Amino acid sequence: MAQVPESHRDLLNAEFATLATLGPDGRPQLSEVWFVAEGDQVSVSLNTGRQKTKNLLARPACCLFILDLTNPGRYLEIRGDALVSDDENIATVEKVTAKYGANVREFDGPDDRRVVVTITPSKINAVNISS
Amino acid sequence: MAQVPESHRDLLNAEFATLATLGPDGRPQLSEVWFVAEGDQVSVSLNTGRQKTKNLLARPACCLFILDLTNPGRYLEIRGDALVSDDENIATVEKVTAKYGANVREFDGPDDRRVVVTITPSKINAVNISS
Repeated sequence: MAQVPESHRDLLNAEFATLATLGPDGRPQLSEVWFVAEGDQVSVSLNTGRQKTKNLLARPACCLFILDLTNPGRYLEIRGDALVSDDENIATVEKVTAKYGANVREFDGPDDRRVVVTITPSKINAVNISS
Repeated sequence: MAQVPESHRDLLNAEFATLATLGPDGRPQLSEVWFVAEGDQVSVSLNTGRQKTKNLLARPACCLFILDLTNPGRYLEIRGDALVSDDENIATVEKVTAKYGANVREFDGPDDRRVVVTITPSKINAVNISS
């Protein structure tokens, strides 16, 4: 598994990341997401009603992009495949709640299930164009 | 052509954007870029040595994502096809120089040419999750 270098490990604690998925037409779609990290493993809590969840179930290739908001020339690009699984015992929802102090299920529809998207990095680019 | 709504037009003057292209394997690749906007038309000056230029020449589907760095719940997602053309009279290089006060050709290799990537928006998502 690709590793996040020491120079960019702080970004794993960032608040936001940009998640790129592939739409039904194979084109990239981007949106801002919350995420949690354990070691180099990044996870996103999504509900099954979202287009990005449907995209990842159909095409697991994705990219999580974590920008240093105070220095946008510095960022971490994590490419890999997403594994989408049920959030058993809502363990990941609870990690998100602990990190953000917010209930991610607040806007879930009545038929939505919570899933965990876990990205196994196949390639990591740690960029700092200002250095 | 899709339009940028008034609520998000200020982001067309932002300094940085995230450009998503499709790699040779069809997977999304993201990197931070400078860009210039004229009306709703966004352009990026790239050199021909870069992987993202090669990606766009092979697969024009792309996405330019402009984040409000002071409020990352607010952003503009511009999806479309990239047209890659020669930067005649380096007109776009000059627009970039005027916006950023920097010479983008400084790091070009001796065999690199400057091209203009112009994105015609087919779909624009203007998001503000904090509103």
